[in-house]
Amino acid sequence: MKDPTLPETIQLGHGSGGIMTRELLDQIVFEYFGNPLLDRKHDGAVLDIPGPVAISTDSFVVSPIFFPGGDIGDLAINGTVNDVAMCGARPRYLSLGFILEEGLPLEAFRRVVQSVRKAADAAGVQIVTGDTKVVEKGKGDQIFINTTGIGTLHPGANIGLERVKEGDSLLLSGPLAAHGMAIMSKREGLEFESEIRSDTAPLHEIILALLDRFGDKVHLLRDPTRGGLASVCSEIAGDAGLGIFLDETQIPVDSQVSAACEILGLDPLYVANEGVFCAFVEPGIAAEALALVQDHKNGRQAALVGNVTAEHVGKVVMRSTIGGTRIVTPLLGEQLPRIC
Amino acid sequence: MKDPTLPETIQLGHGSGGIMTRELLDQIVFEYFGNPLLDRKHDGAVLDIPGPVAISTDSFVVSPIFFPGGDIGDLAINGTVNDVAMCGARPRYLSLGFILEEGLPLEAFRRVVQSVRKAADAAGVQIVTGDTKVVEKGKGDQIFINTTGIGTLHPGANIGLERVKEGDSLLLSGPLAAHGMAIMSKREGLEFESEIRSDTAPLHEIILALLDRFGDKVHLLRDPTRGGLASVCSEIAGDAGLGIFLDETQIPVDSQVSAACEILGLDPLYVANEGVFCAFVEPGIAAEALALVQDHKNGRQAALVGNVTAEHVGKVVMRSTIGGTRIVTPLLGEQLPRIC
Repeated sequence: MKDPTLPETIQLGHGSGGIMTRELLDQIVFEYFGNPLLDRKHDGAVLDIPGPVAISTDSFVVSPIFFPGGDIGDLAINGTVNDVAMCGARPRYLSLGFILEEGLPLEAFRRVVQSVRKAADAAGVQIVTGDTKVVEKGKGDQIFINTTGIGTLHPGANIGLERVKEGDSLLLSGPLAAHGMAIMSKREGLEFESEIRSDTAPLHEIILALLDRFGDKVHLLRDPTRGGLASVCSEIAGDAGLGIFLDETQIPVDSQVSAACEILGLDPLYVANEGVFCAFVEPGIAAEALALVQDHKNGRQAALVGNVTAEHVGKVVMRSTIGGTRIVTPLLGEQLPRIC
Repeated sequence: MKDPTLPETIQLGHGSGGIMTRELLDQIVFEYFGNPLLDRKHDGAVLDIPGPVAISTDSFVVSPIFFPGGDIGDLAINGTVNDVAMCGARPRYLSLGFILEEGLPLEAFRRVVQSVRKAADAAGVQIVTGDTKVVEKGKGDQIFINTTGIGTLHPGANIGLERVKEGDSLLLSGPLAAHGMAIMSKREGLEFESEIRSDTAPLHEIILALLDRFGDKVHLLRDPTRGGLASVCSEIAGDAGLGIFLDETQIPVDSQVSAACEILGLDPLYVANEGVFCAFVEPGIAAEALALVQDHKNGRQAALVGNVTAEHVGKVVMRSTIGGTRIVTPLLGEQLPRIC
């Protein structure tokens, strides 16, 4: 479908703040996001949200922008929805900022905008304010998206680094490395029996169910995106001044993802995830919490993969599948650039 | 000042989510933004802000990133502070998302971060959550910044397009086109007797003073950034279904800015501003409101520049300095790319 007044590609004029900007917004953005708040077309939106609120921001620069299992549009929604959820809050409102590169096919932009809308609907969040900028060809890369999310804190939530304690169980909600390997397989042109698909998904419903049931017995929530589970656990061990023990035999990784990692010489512990969280919970509720997570569509393969210990403070130690133990160091530099 | 473990330029590894990211954040970002909310180093922040709240987002892609009167750092703070203020709210919290280009000198990043901090302090807002991504050289342009702001709605505020009425006075808070011409002069290497400096400034204190005193007699607030006063007025005239009359003789433009516009063939009505707002107010309070704005440092040159009329609906008509009248059309395409 073509709009009579829109050219086929994004032009600098679409970022001018004048008629071309307005046409682009009216015919693509407002077309898909019309809602009473956004329709006011002011510089911002006024929300009647009861406090306390959680806020989180993320910029998405993933390349390629379309990949098996998703695209930069749903990633930008799910990524921020999950960051808000990890604070123990129900995501409610999102801002949406596009930085478009001159020459981007309008159809690609439309597809991303549709995908943003679909993901926002699926997660039950509303886009309430936005911004669109255009940069010259060669000064950007097709589309960058920033989303900032606001959510209502769950009344039972008490999430924080300082709440992680010796003995806490570490629950992982799903298999590792699917997002990173979907991107890498696409970039490298790797083909497998069945396509590796990104795990991008909103996780707040599981999180809220956990908090409904277990309240402050859930101590810390994190989604291991860039840097993977290894980096998140290392950071937490360092910041909390405790040790973390991981049992490799318990960590779920799909066999194809595992094979792709081997081919490319990557360790799934360091690869980005976009639909997985880890929860540090009181050991007494670990089994029940696991069952609850496994009951959800995005948590079927959840597992208890480790625990917090007073030994090896600041470090993550893993017992490997062949029985030895090793220290898991955080990622040093770049493993997979532009993964999210 | 060099940090022993940091290289001299931004590298892809700084966006990895691993140790290099942590070092960059610890030694530059947290160094300047340490506060109890940010220090939790979670994926987001929890705020105890009473509703209703205003929210606004903006991405900044200005080129060059350093210019007379400011840089992309203070622009990113003031721009969003002002958008929140235009909703009739006191800006309180900001998120901060960087997209850095590989190869950016670390000193440039440090300078921008310092500038962000200084502007945030000056505006009385707190950076509560952030994100830093790195893209390959040639896939970005030094630094892009997204800020999303949250503020507390002023109890007396009732701002909206639907409140603009026939007879409303249009108050402009300062001289036009300084920001755009500062950028252009720098790009074009134009030299004037004294440098043209961007007008970037936070405007919320004046706005809040107006609302304290006049409450809902202030009908609409807008800052004419991209597209300038002409585009903002055209948009409002179209959306509100009313006409706007402008008196060119009353519109303040500094003489050097005016000269620069002439040299470059630009109309100051279309050039971006970053420290000016326009207010549509009840005619009965116009003179008092003007005096109040002129009392503020950033409002000394404020003027009453027009009014709302039931004639020429949807259009902006201007009486020029030589006495004729003409229709002011909105900006069509791009006048000054990458201005903010």
